[in-house]
Amino acid sequence: MTKQVQELIERAQRTFVIAHVDPDGDTIASALALAHALRKMGKKCILACDDPVPEALSFLPGIQEFGTPAITDEDLIIAVDASDPNRLGSAYQSVLCLDRPTVNIDHHVTNNMFGTVNLVRTEAAATAEIVFDLLRDLEVLLDPLLATYLLTGIVADTRSFSTPNTTPRILEVSAELMEAGASLTEINENYFNRRRLVTLRLWGKVLDQMQLDGDLVWSVNTLDMQNECRAGSDSGDGIVNLLATIREAAAAIVFKESEDGQVDISIRSRPGVDISPIAVHFGGGGHPQAAGSILQGSLDQVIPKVLSKAKQVLNSNR
Amino acid sequence: MTKQVQELIERAQRTFVIAHVDPDGDTIASALALAHALRKMGKKCILACDDPVPEALSFLPGIQEFGTPAITDEDLIIAVDASDPNRLGSAYQSVLCLDRPTVNIDHHVTNNMFGTVNLVRTEAAATAEIVFDLLRDLEVLLDPLLATYLLTGIVADTRSFSTPNTTPRILEVSAELMEAGASLTEINENYFNRRRLVTLRLWGKVLDQMQLDGDLVWSVNTLDMQNECRAGSDSGDGIVNLLATIREAAAAIVFKESEDGQVDISIRSRPGVDISPIAVHFGGGGHPQAAGSILQGSLDQVIPKVLSKAKQVLNSNR
Repeated sequence: MTKQVQELIERAQRTFVIAHVDPDGDTIASALALAHALRKMGKKCILACDDPVPEALSFLPGIQEFGTPAITDEDLIIAVDASDPNRLGSAYQSVLCLDRPTVNIDHHVTNNMFGTVNLVRTEAAATAEIVFDLLRDLEVLLDPLLATYLLTGIVADTRSFSTPNTTPRILEVSAELMEAGASLTEINENYFNRRRLVTLRLWGKVLDQMQLDGDLVWSVNTLDMQNECRAGSDSGDGIVNLLATIREAAAAIVFKESEDGQVDISIRSRPGVDISPIAVHFGGGGHPQAAGSILQGSLDQVIPKVLSKAKQVLNSNR
Repeated sequence: MTKQVQELIERAQRTFVIAHVDPDGDTIASALALAHALRKMGKKCILACDDPVPEALSFLPGIQEFGTPAITDEDLIIAVDASDPNRLGSAYQSVLCLDRPTVNIDHHVTNNMFGTVNLVRTEAAATAEIVFDLLRDLEVLLDPLLATYLLTGIVADTRSFSTPNTTPRILEVSAELMEAGASLTEINENYFNRRRLVTLRLWGKVLDQMQLDGDLVWSVNTLDMQNECRAGSDSGDGIVNLLATIREAAAAIVFKESEDGQVDISIRSRPGVDISPIAVHFGGGGHPQAAGSILQGSLDQVIPKVLSKAKQVLNSNR
């Protein structure tokens, strides 16, 4: 499949590269790496993302290029790290109806092969790893900025080499990217180690409300807590990962109250414990170790329903 | 120097391997790797450590071998990851007075070359990296257990490849150790992701007491807080790392109150900000980004003194 993608890219003059909605480090950094490489090859490139880019990625040069421009006379569309057209957002989900080829570059097992050509490798730790290989085939030389983009994608999707998708090969690729000028320290400092004071204050309150119920640990992130800390509604988002490190727990859930009468649930589990059925049952989705959903109702209504389902799923995991 | 160490090891029959006091993952796992390799070479080996081994390392087979046995008829002593004889603890700091050779294997810049032969490589990310090279020179083949020990040492001293001492080479070595059967996921899960519920409850209280003073964030871990959470006195020890991720802060300090009228201070900083002079001023020590000290007095007495010195040091860093 790489051969076909290579040919499409070599023939293209004006490219349009799209990152997925609710963007993470892999989609954004991989898209930036592609744009940088395409321009080195003398091609034009427009970058698009139908959602705002997370502030944690603002250290990446060129990040301000992402927006929602219209597709006009571009002759090649490249979707990056998106498992289906819906992940391109309402601005771009109809790209497939256009009379020009779409390349689908991704590593998600759930990819539905929506592209004209699909470069989908589910064994890759990150889409950045696939882009690394593609650029080598295209004979694009690494430079420090290109290496920084690619290593950021890898570090983001492996949570700095700590997730089970970290392969020996991804360590070797990362070593090569460091040799080419990427700074692992700077990427880690910028991507993971920049929390706002109010975020950690809110984390403190969530930790204070923790409850252990069998081998399930859970807590709440209420509007009152957010207001008291003057923290934004997204501030509590990483805390569920910390709860999941608790030795006594097989799984962790955080219930986040929203202004609009909804409750956002985030679920995490230890390797070997599949909690995705809990999220799926409530109309959400995710991976075996990390999933989530949004439920209508108050905390009092939502919590007992979800805890009951969670215990059932945890029991069936035994 | 490796050649001399190699000869000493090849000649030895009964070896005595010592990890340093207040042991971390690198000293313990490197010592275990050496013991395992020496036995594969047909030699006897005794493992020693003058302090208890942290529970986070209990997943390593053979961990129960560490104790404080007397040195009797052993013909070679190997000190692992210890920068000076004091780091061997009172049980072993006089090893140098014995009439047999001591090999000093370490990577600390502060190593005072106390061994009969000193294999000290300060560019190594971990002592485990030096042991990896030594075992290759000794033609000891990697097996899954040996690879697990060595990768644990590396993961521990680079905090899973996130510290500035992470080199391209250490990623390549780690890839090789994974290929040889070490599970990076299991090591990360066991070493970093096993916190007690009461530990996180205490973290919540420490976060609740956070104060930002200029670009210094600080908090307290009092006896009352420890008692209220029923957490042991060492439970609050990782929280300073979390405080140091605060975007508004260049440095973080946690003041921990002890039963014996002492206050234990832990200091962390962003890369580029050297806070070790604060610890040194109060009789402690450490690295530019991580240092600590123990002060006599109450929290009320200690805090203003340390904050005043900290601000002076942070100002001189600008």
